[in-house]
Amino acid sequence: MCGKLFSKVLVDLGNRSYTIFIGKNLLSKSEYLMPLFKHSQVVIVTNEIVAPLHLGKLSKVLENNNCEHFSIILPDGEKNKSLAVLKTIFDEMLKNKIGRDAVLVALGGGVIGDMAGFAAACYQRGINYLQIPTTLLSQVDSSVGGKTAVNHELGKNMIGAFYQPKSVIIDIETLRTLPKREFYSGIAEIIKYGCIADKDFFIWIEKNILELVQREPIILAEAIKRSCKIKAQIVAMDEKESGARALLNFGHTFGHAIENGLGYGQWLHGEAVGCGMVMASKLSVHLGLINKSDEKRIASLIKLAGLPLIWPDWTAKHYLRLMSNDKKIKGKIIYYVVLDSIGKAKLLPLNNEVISAALFKGKL
Amino acid sequence: MCGKLFSKVLVDLGNRSYTIFIGKNLLSKSEYLMPLFKHSQVVIVTNEIVAPLHLGKLSKVLENNNCEHFSIILPDGEKNKSLAVLKTIFDEMLKNKIGRDAVLVALGGGVIGDMAGFAAACYQRGINYLQIPTTLLSQVDSSVGGKTAVNHELGKNMIGAFYQPKSVIIDIETLRTLPKREFYSGIAEIIKYGCIADKDFFIWIEKNILELVQREPIILAEAIKRSCKIKAQIVAMDEKESGARALLNFGHTFGHAIENGLGYGQWLHGEAVGCGMVMASKLSVHLGLINKSDEKRIASLIKLAGLPLIWPDWTAKHYLRLMSNDKKIKGKIIYYVVLDSIGKAKLLPLNNEVISAALFKGKL
Repeated sequence: MCGKLFSKVLVDLGNRSYTIFIGKNLLSKSEYLMPLFKHSQVVIVTNEIVAPLHLGKLSKVLENNNCEHFSIILPDGEKNKSLAVLKTIFDEMLKNKIGRDAVLVALGGGVIGDMAGFAAACYQRGINYLQIPTTLLSQVDSSVGGKTAVNHELGKNMIGAFYQPKSVIIDIETLRTLPKREFYSGIAEIIKYGCIADKDFFIWIEKNILELVQREPIILAEAIKRSCKIKAQIVAMDEKESGARALLNFGHTFGHAIENGLGYGQWLHGEAVGCGMVMASKLSVHLGLINKSDEKRIASLIKLAGLPLIWPDWTAKHYLRLMSNDKKIKGKIIYYVVLDSIGKAKLLPLNNEVISAALFKGKL
Repeated sequence: MCGKLFSKVLVDLGNRSYTIFIGKNLLSKSEYLMPLFKHSQVVIVTNEIVAPLHLGKLSKVLENNNCEHFSIILPDGEKNKSLAVLKTIFDEMLKNKIGRDAVLVALGGGVIGDMAGFAAACYQRGINYLQIPTTLLSQVDSSVGGKTAVNHELGKNMIGAFYQPKSVIIDIETLRTLPKREFYSGIAEIIKYGCIADKDFFIWIEKNILELVQREPIILAEAIKRSCKIKAQIVAMDEKESGARALLNFGHTFGHAIENGLGYGQWLHGEAVGCGMVMASKLSVHLGLINKSDEKRIASLIKLAGLPLIWPDWTAKHYLRLMSNDKKIKGKIIYYVVLDSIGKAKLLPLNNEVISAALFKGKL
C-alpha cells in the first residue's frame, strides 16, 4: 500500500483540469494506472537512461492488462530537445499507424516531458497524454501547468504549446536511482516555491532540508505535494503566462542566461536556477525590497541543497545580451522577478543600469 | 466604400471567438486593418506567388501608420508545407527577435494559412495571428475553425494544432488574379456546405453557379458569407473535431486518398474533394440514403464548377490502403461522411466490402 505517502493534487483549469497522483511504487500498480488508459493504444516516450530503470515496470502492468502499447526510446539530454528529435517521435507514431484516440505517456524527466508533451499537442492536432515524471525537477515543476516545448538554436523552449496532460503520476520510488546532481537540481525549484509564494513552506524547508537532501520518503512526498499545490494555484490563476505565472520564473531569467552562455547541459537547469535565485535575491536587496538576512537565508538553503552560489564571471553586457532573447521581454525592456519578502514575489521592468549596479559593481 | 459587399461573420468560440470581415479592397483600407494590429510588431508570412500581387498593399497601409513590420516570403506549394519550412519561419522570427506580443499575419492560400497559423500556435507557445486568405478555398474553408498544420511524409496535416486567429480578413479583390483551376477548387468546398448542411444554399448555388464561376462580386461575396456561416456554426458545436465537425470531411476521405495516391500537387485539393464528393454521393446511393437524381444534381454542380468527375482508376485495395492513414479512423475501422439527403450528412463506420461493392464493382 501507498499509505501515508499517497496524496492527490488537483490542477483546476476548467475543462482542462487534471489530477496529480503522488505516492510510492505507483508505477507498478494496476489499480492506479489502468483507469487512466481506458483501453486505448498506449505510446510510451522515454529515453535510453530511463528505459532500463523504469520502463519494465510500466510495460508489465500494461501487458498484464492486455493493453496494446509500444515504446519510443530517445537519446538522452537537453541537446536532443529539438525539432529534429521531435520529428522522430512523429515518424515512429505514423509508421505504427497511431490514431487520434491513442494515449501518449511521457516517462522521464523534464526533457522527455516537454518534448513528448509537445508531440502529443501536435500529433494529429492533439491527442491525450499522461506524464510520469521521474526526476525531482520534473515532478515539482513541469508536471504542473502544461508547458511543453523544444529548443531552437537561438533560444530555449522557443517552440512549444500550452497543452495539459490528462493526469500526472509521481512515483517517488523513481527518485531512488536519480543521480545526486539531478536530485539537488530539483530542490532548487522547491526552494523557489517557498521564496515566491509561501513563507511557511520556506520555513518548513529550512527545518527539513537535511532529510530532504537525504531523500527521506515522507519529507520528499510532502515537499512534492506542497510544491505542486503552489504551482497549481498559480497556474490556475494564469494558464497562459500573461500575469501571475511569470512569478514562477524567479531565478530563471538569470538562470537561462547562465545555461545559454555556458552551453546547455554544462550546468543543470536547477543549478542555474538556484544560482539565478541568488542573483535575483541580491537584486531584490539592491532595490531595498528585502534585507541582507533574507538574502542569506535563501543562499544558505541553496548551499545546503548542494547547488552553486557563484555565477559565471561574465560582464553585465554579456549577461544582458544573453537575456535579451528571453520570452519575458515585453517590447525591448527586460522584466525581472524580484522578492518583496520571503514568500512574496513581483515582476518589475528594470533597465540595464540597475542590473549592472546591483550585480556587476556598476560596470556595463 | 465596400457598400453592399461588406459583411461580417462571427465565429462563436467563447473566449476564442473572432470575426471574419468580408468585402472588396479591405487589404488597402487602414480603417479595417489598423484596429486589428493594436500597435504591435507585425510579421507577415506569405509566399513568392502572393507577395508580388498583394503584399505591397498591406505593407503600404502598415507603413502609412508607422507600424513596425517585416515579411517572411516562403516558397510556394503544398510540398513546402513541411516541418523543415516551418522551421525557417521560426529561424527568421528569432533572428529578428520577435517577442510574444507580436502579431503574425498569414497572407496567402491554405498552405500559408495552415503553416503560418501553426507557426503562430507554437512560437513561444503561441502568439496572436490574423488570417488574410487570398484564395477562394482558404476563404471558405481554412479561414474558419483554427485548424493549422504541416504535412508529414506519411500523411497530410499530421502535425498541427487547433489555434484560432484573432480575426480573418477576406478581400474578394484578391480572387481577381486567382488562376482558374484554383478558383474552381474553392467552389468544391462551397458546394460541400450545401450538400452537408443547407439545402436552400444548395439550391441557391444551382441557380447562381454560372455567375459564381464568372466571379461576379455580389454572388461571390454572398457565397463566401454563407459558406463561412455554415462552417462557423459547425465549428462552434465542435471545436476539436470530436463530433459534428467530422461532417465537414464530406468528400475528403476519398479526396485525401486521391491526393495522396497521385502525389500532392497533381490534383488541387478542391479537385480531389469535388471528385471525392462524387464518390461519397455514389456511396450514399448504394446505402439507400439518397436517390440517383440527388447524386446527379451534385455531380452536375461539380461539373459546372469545372471540377473532375472521374476518379483515378485504382483498385479498392489501393484506395483503402491510402485511406488507412486518415485521421478519421477510430481504432481500425474507417468512418465515412455520407448524405442522408441533400443538406444533411452523417458519419458512418463502413467495412471494406461495402466500399468495394459501392464503388469498385465488388472487387477488393
